[in-house]
Amino acid sequence: MSKIRIGIIGYGNLGKGVELAIKQSCDTELACVFTRRDPKALKILTENVPVCSINDIEQYKGKIDVMILCGGSATDLPEQGPKYASIFNTIDSFDTHAKIPEYFAKVDAVAKSGKNVSIISVGWDPGMFSVNRLYGNCLLPDGKDYTFWGKGISQGHSDAIRRIEGVADAKQYTIPVESAVEAARSGENPELTTRQKHTRECFVVSKDGADKAKIESEIKNMPNYFADYDTTVHFISQEDLIRDHSGIPHGGFVLRSGKTGVNGETSHVIEYSLKLGSNPEFTSNVLVAYARAAYKLAQEGNFGAKTVFDIAPAYLSPKTGEELRATML
Amino acid sequence: MSKIRIGIIGYGNLGKGVELAIKQSCDTELACVFTRRDPKALKILTENVPVCSINDIEQYKGKIDVMILCGGSATDLPEQGPKYASIFNTIDSFDTHAKIPEYFAKVDAVAKSGKNVSIISVGWDPGMFSVNRLYGNCLLPDGKDYTFWGKGISQGHSDAIRRIEGVADAKQYTIPVESAVEAARSGENPELTTRQKHTRECFVVSKDGADKAKIESEIKNMPNYFADYDTTVHFISQEDLIRDHSGIPHGGFVLRSGKTGVNGETSHVIEYSLKLGSNPEFTSNVLVAYARAAYKLAQEGNFGAKTVFDIAPAYLSPKTGEELRATML
Repeated sequence: MSKIRIGIIGYGNLGKGVELAIKQSCDTELACVFTRRDPKALKILTENVPVCSINDIEQYKGKIDVMILCGGSATDLPEQGPKYASIFNTIDSFDTHAKIPEYFAKVDAVAKSGKNVSIISVGWDPGMFSVNRLYGNCLLPDGKDYTFWGKGISQGHSDAIRRIEGVADAKQYTIPVESAVEAARSGENPELTTRQKHTRECFVVSKDGADKAKIESEIKNMPNYFADYDTTVHFISQEDLIRDHSGIPHGGFVLRSGKTGVNGETSHVIEYSLKLGSNPEFTSNVLVAYARAAYKLAQEGNFGAKTVFDIAPAYLSPKTGEELRATML
Repeated sequence: MSKIRIGIIGYGNLGKGVELAIKQSCDTELACVFTRRDPKALKILTENVPVCSINDIEQYKGKIDVMILCGGSATDLPEQGPKYASIFNTIDSFDTHAKIPEYFAKVDAVAKSGKNVSIISVGWDPGMFSVNRLYGNCLLPDGKDYTFWGKGISQGHSDAIRRIEGVADAKQYTIPVESAVEAARSGENPELTTRQKHTRECFVVSKDGADKAKIESEIKNMPNYFADYDTTVHFISQEDLIRDHSGIPHGGFVLRSGKTGVNGETSHVIEYSLKLGSNPEFTSNVLVAYARAAYKLAQEGNFGAKTVFDIAPAYLSPKTGEELRATML
């Protein structure tokens, strides 16, 4: 049986993770990596697979079954998503929640006219966490949702600290407050404020002569990012930052707590949790599973933009329905 | 907007739970309860809804959108599933794992020729646990599955005890071993035996003059049910059994622990857990959510037997795709 031919656009942490995920998967193969850099300067792990300039991508129409877009949501995907959905089946991890409806509409129109399938916002949040919020809401309609993130590195918050004057480097951990997680787990449907749910811990390398007190105050009072949280700031050396904080772990919990019974007298709690050794490597595995789904949907002629909500679980598996019913139901 | 008209076959714990679940749900209404008993003798909670003899069920063709079969897997469903799939869209909770492929094939043939949708084996295991085993396997192909049940009442094990000579009544709790759950959560992919994963705790009411030592020994040595487990037996009075063990709580955990990275150096753990105040009430909520999916699939002409693996999450929700993307992704 021929394997699903996958292309990767962008070879950062996510692109590398997708390359590894393709290797782990029995029915996929890497066809090509596309880059904006000089292709000759890029060394990938997989042998005998070409690295091409993104400018030559159109030559690969018909030679790649699914293209996985590994760029960022701020500037790459808003341009690349609609552009490549006209040529290829695509998967992306677009995660700017507020702009998803607009992005979906754009990609949908292009994918339909190109007779392609594009599954957008794939990963763990948006992605698996979204799926679990949806299942939870459908199974316990009279209930309450809780999403906790961490302990893990937030790229956005780390970047925000790095933009402060006098900061050489920084990493920020988002940490769920254990007592808040326990309260949500209790089934009592507590109301929890932003401050009660998460704390933020920052490891900062300051430049020589920088005013540390001023940096700490700027971090703690930064609106949206830190002001609504209990934030701790540690100043450490660049060596310590590299030695102790180079991993990219993440994870979190989605809880749905709800009531049933004649008078809502029965409590139930559904909990989905992820403990991820590497955020980009797990996200990549999710992307490749959904690439398999995109391939199957395209074979069926079910074109257009989709999200994880639209994909039946069986589409993610290399096994047949018969095998799944016999072994996993 | 007209609501989805649901029929219930069988008014035991599950049938009653489905009646409550329909009330909780914004887009469903109870159309009729069908019973093998004398319909006049059955009092249901919902006002102005008829109770009919199961012998008159064919008269309801076209008046019920989805029929929820609330009988047992041993004798009711093997007969009722294929029979009613020819007349109605159906949902059932068939849970004899080994016979699912055969049951699926029978129901599929009948449902297709009757132009109906039948979603079989719906509930939490098989059901939501199956879905999570499948997602876990697809997202972490290089990994290991763990399913733990409990703490909860096992109906089958309680029944097995009640069949022993000298036993008047009994309830059996299946209890996951905390250290085994922790080992699975560690991401170390431990091998766990049956005995290491669960213990069984039995509350037994003996008949006057019965030989308690003999009963205890018969329980502990019963093949398949108890012999492979560490089992504790408590003899208590009928009053205490009723007072302390009348609830039907259940739940459990599905864990998938797996590796990624160049040499499998990164660990990840996915965990799905349920803490259910009432097993039949939660199962009923799952049945009604999938009834909504069956209704939508039938509207699309996507007939035949399905399982939870074949149902995209969005089909379970009363909300539109647009609403879901804007609020839950």
